[in-house]
Amino acid sequence: MIPTKEDLERASKRIAPFIHQTPVLTSQSLNRISGARLFFKCENFQKMGAFKMRGASHAVQRLSAKEKERGVATHSSGNFAQALSLAAKSAGIKAYIVMPSNAPKVKKEAVLGYGAEVIDCEPNLQAREAVLEKVVQKTGAAFIHPSNDMRVILGQGTAALELIREVPNLDFIVAPVGSGGLLAGTALAAHYFSPDTKVFAGEPMGADDAWQSLRAGKIIPVSNPKTIADGLRTSLGDQNFPIIKKWVRDIIRVEEQEILDALRLIWERLKIIVEPSSAVALAAVLKERDVFGESRVGIILSGGNVDLGALSTYFSG
Amino acid sequence: MIPTKEDLERASKRIAPFIHQTPVLTSQSLNRISGARLFFKCENFQKMGAFKMRGASHAVQRLSAKEKERGVATHSSGNFAQALSLAAKSAGIKAYIVMPSNAPKVKKEAVLGYGAEVIDCEPNLQAREAVLEKVVQKTGAAFIHPSNDMRVILGQGTAALELIREVPNLDFIVAPVGSGGLLAGTALAAHYFSPDTKVFAGEPMGADDAWQSLRAGKIIPVSNPKTIADGLRTSLGDQNFPIIKKWVRDIIRVEEQEILDALRLIWERLKIIVEPSSAVALAAVLKERDVFGESRVGIILSGGNVDLGALSTYFSG
Repeated sequence: MIPTKEDLERASKRIAPFIHQTPVLTSQSLNRISGARLFFKCENFQKMGAFKMRGASHAVQRLSAKEKERGVATHSSGNFAQALSLAAKSAGIKAYIVMPSNAPKVKKEAVLGYGAEVIDCEPNLQAREAVLEKVVQKTGAAFIHPSNDMRVILGQGTAALELIREVPNLDFIVAPVGSGGLLAGTALAAHYFSPDTKVFAGEPMGADDAWQSLRAGKIIPVSNPKTIADGLRTSLGDQNFPIIKKWVRDIIRVEEQEILDALRLIWERLKIIVEPSSAVALAAVLKERDVFGESRVGIILSGGNVDLGALSTYFSG
Repeated sequence: MIPTKEDLERASKRIAPFIHQTPVLTSQSLNRISGARLFFKCENFQKMGAFKMRGASHAVQRLSAKEKERGVATHSSGNFAQALSLAAKSAGIKAYIVMPSNAPKVKKEAVLGYGAEVIDCEPNLQAREAVLEKVVQKTGAAFIHPSNDMRVILGQGTAALELIREVPNLDFIVAPVGSGGLLAGTALAAHYFSPDTKVFAGEPMGADDAWQSLRAGKIIPVSNPKTIADGLRTSLGDQNFPIIKKWVRDIIRVEEQEILDALRLIWERLKIIVEPSSAVALAAVLKERDVFGESRVGIILSGGNVDLGALSTYFSG
């Protein structure tokens, strides 16, 4: 069942004490370059560095007292592992995180630093799900999916809700799409709080399963994704896809070089650090000038957790 | 003559339409790491990307009507060239910028983009000064020194003034020191508007002329500076040194690795882009825990104009 306007409003109030209301940045030079008026919602400044903190916080806050006693569990190699660990810590409950054995050491340490229990598994989806299953059976912890959970989707939608409240009369909001939680939440927020605002997504050409799914009218899982935007290599889910199908106007696919160019523009002009996945929305706006030209465009910058040691890959020369 | 409190107040009002009031950022993790409470004044978000915009704007605004007709001139290979060009453009007057022939092409293009006239010269200080002299004789333009000019010093001081107004009861303010304009302005602001706040500076060990000058009681010019903090390779001047001598508590020298570590912390934890010179103040705070521990410390982040292509130098591995 699709959540209501009131559900989203309540989600926003519920998580307010546990998240940052992130700033909205603008740049005269990026306006000049794009021809549009751009408003960047900076989730790279969110707690633990990404919008995932919103969904994780909301899911944890919605647990019953009984569920809270037993804690939460998820499998993730990335931002959601840290987000759920920190959200659980803030609520004083346990978190069990199943992480692939090849996950970056720094991410594992961050999760441990938030007091979560890390359970290693083989680096493939089947192993992750099997190990998670065992953890849930043993501990009774509540499984929180990183994106295909209505509590998570509502949490992610609060970023667009804040943006809409701060910047009225947006013609467009553009978000990146990976596993669909952020995009579905963004679509919900626009539908209920700014119905004239059209929601688009940017997606890497090398992982264009959401673009394909929208055209097929059913979920096409991603296969062999190839993109620098490591947060967007995942597939949609049955909870978020119906919302995306209903309220997302279209998905714009961008090439790797377009992602890198947009990433560089954000770093150089906004002077902020975002991860490659965050640059996909701006890349889409720069690509489709016919669509966005001279409009007021909100752009969700999804996060800023990037390995500075790998920077030379992005910006050599 | 040392400017008065009213001079600084007027400077702040005069330049307000031409600059950004930059945000002050905080970070729980950087507080934890430093043991202090840190407040970062983000001049990397300033127009053209650095605090220099303040001093340049103020100098231009203080010109007489007659001077404005003839325009302004300076020699600079860096941020001040861009700052003066943009400030002149905003005031609708001409700017002549003497730039060494080896200045980065991107910087030259930025200056030309602001409508200034660029005059090439040999890449050494004598040539710069000689060419500038000729330009001034020919055009009658007013020479604005990048740091050793009381109008510029007052402009730079408005960053600390804004910080003091936004964050009361600072125990310390720490700024980087290069040619002394920012540090002198910061010292003035603290002296007049928050006299209990102690002003310190951070300086690279490989360009420690200000540290030496403070100890000798007279200006010791920098010789053969070696530091990644390219904005801090210059010497103090006779306008700013008396202010620094009077009101700066001390200068803390930091090693290159300490600068790089602080730079990385700012990028990773604050998720913002700053140039190496900006990291020197944080490096000083992290080095002298006995001085700053558990205090409220304002840190001036001087700018964010960095060559992303050269990033691999900073963050390899």
